[in-house]
Amino acid sequence: MIFIIGLGPGREDEMTPRALEALERSDVIVGYKAYIDLLVSSFGHKKLIPSAMKQEVERCRQAAELALAGNNVALVSGGDAGVYGMAGPMLEVLDTLEAQDYHDKKLEVEIIPGITSACSAAAVLGAPLTHDFAVVSLSDLLTPWKLIEKRLTLAAEADFVICLYNPASRNRKDYLKKACEAVMTARNGSTPSGWVRNAGRNGQTHKILPLSELKDEELDMFCTVIIGNSGTRMLGGRMVTPRGYKVQGSTQ
Amino acid sequence: MIFIIGLGPGREDEMTPRALEALERSDVIVGYKAYIDLLVSSFGHKKLIPSAMKQEVERCRQAAELALAGNNVALVSGGDAGVYGMAGPMLEVLDTLEAQDYHDKKLEVEIIPGITSACSAAAVLGAPLTHDFAVVSLSDLLTPWKLIEKRLTLAAEADFVICLYNPASRNRKDYLKKACEAVMTARNGSTPSGWVRNAGRNGQTHKILPLSELKDEELDMFCTVIIGNSGTRMLGGRMVTPRGYKVQGSTQ
Repeated sequence: MIFIIGLGPGREDEMTPRALEALERSDVIVGYKAYIDLLVSSFGHKKLIPSAMKQEVERCRQAAELALAGNNVALVSGGDAGVYGMAGPMLEVLDTLEAQDYHDKKLEVEIIPGITSACSAAAVLGAPLTHDFAVVSLSDLLTPWKLIEKRLTLAAEADFVICLYNPASRNRKDYLKKACEAVMTARNGSTPSGWVRNAGRNGQTHKILPLSELKDEELDMFCTVIIGNSGTRMLGGRMVTPRGYKVQGSTQ
Repeated sequence: MIFIIGLGPGREDEMTPRALEALERSDVIVGYKAYIDLLVSSFGHKKLIPSAMKQEVERCRQAAELALAGNNVALVSGGDAGVYGMAGPMLEVLDTLEAQDYHDKKLEVEIIPGITSACSAAAVLGAPLTHDFAVVSLSDLLTPWKLIEKRLTLAAEADFVICLYNPASRNRKDYLKKACEAVMTARNGSTPSGWVRNAGRNGQTHKILPLSELKDEELDMFCTVIIGNSGTRMLGGRMVTPRGYKVQGSTQ
């Protein structure tokens, strides 16, 4: 049995009871080191197997092998298990194993969702996701930058609120700037935007600022960015994207 | 104090401890009737105020008045509090009250995220959200259909995985069909797609089928739809959108 589990933003009180119960039922917990660290205090009695970044496929293979050897295995992702998470590569790896007749019995797989960064970051910034939105990762490890840029340009043209995952890393210092420029081809520089670092975790910080200034922020892979649409405005210090309700006396 | 709370898909074991604690700290719980119903068994000792659909602004006003009268108030949404949820209209209503000098002291507001339908539906269908995606509501109560259609067309052109909220209701029987046609302007009819009814709740059902057949499905407002991108494929009966990892021996 393999549980593919989304741990949510990181605070233990934002992991769901369903996720916690699956962890409790597991013999082994496999995941990226930073997520395994979150589990040491409550699940230190389990076999914990942390692995490095960029070892996603190896991690899935290991999880599959442990499960085939008879263990209940939890494979954990931060945020949701599906949104750029481990559910995808795990199902791909299992498909490979099945194609190779690697095992007689199908492993049972259960995917357990968690709160994704778009939602945890939005809650910190206000209510920017009350209307249609697009989620784009700025990591070009696996996606050509040209495609990322095309998606950003079209998302801007469609007036989607835009949420950026992985907005920067050591080797991609200018990507946020390039992304903002792509969005500004069809969106005003005064558009309320914001970032949250460590949303829903220890050390949470955030900042709200116009899109034109966002491009010069120094962010890292622990940040999530939200860029408003043409209707997003600042209300009481928070970003709000109106859905279109008639709120009497409001400035909408 | 006002807590704006996302309850997640509906199962009690997918509500976060943070959400449950805020409900416990509240004197009054306000929300759409179907969500209040979910809380009766555990929070029947609280004052529960259910309201009808389309009464969002009235509901927010009532929550604000109860809070101004000295109550701790929980305003609940299904899924996440922000994704088409009550956080937006609540912040708009509070802004109106502040503009009117309605009260001396600012109310404290805490927004508590929950698992949104995109994630709970994706977990049922497989791993369709492992790459960039767009979330679009097909409800045209507050958004002109022309804008919805434009967003769908551009999202298809950008090769986003597309998640549809509110895909149909009694008065919008042909909207799903029109939406699929907009997406098919730039996406193959064979693209794996799926819907989930009551994702993560009692009565959950789902179906995976090609985009060309999705348009004729009879759905309702309890359904969430996910349309794959050009890379999405069927693996072991599930929808998977590869992120681009090299999975040796795979058919990718």
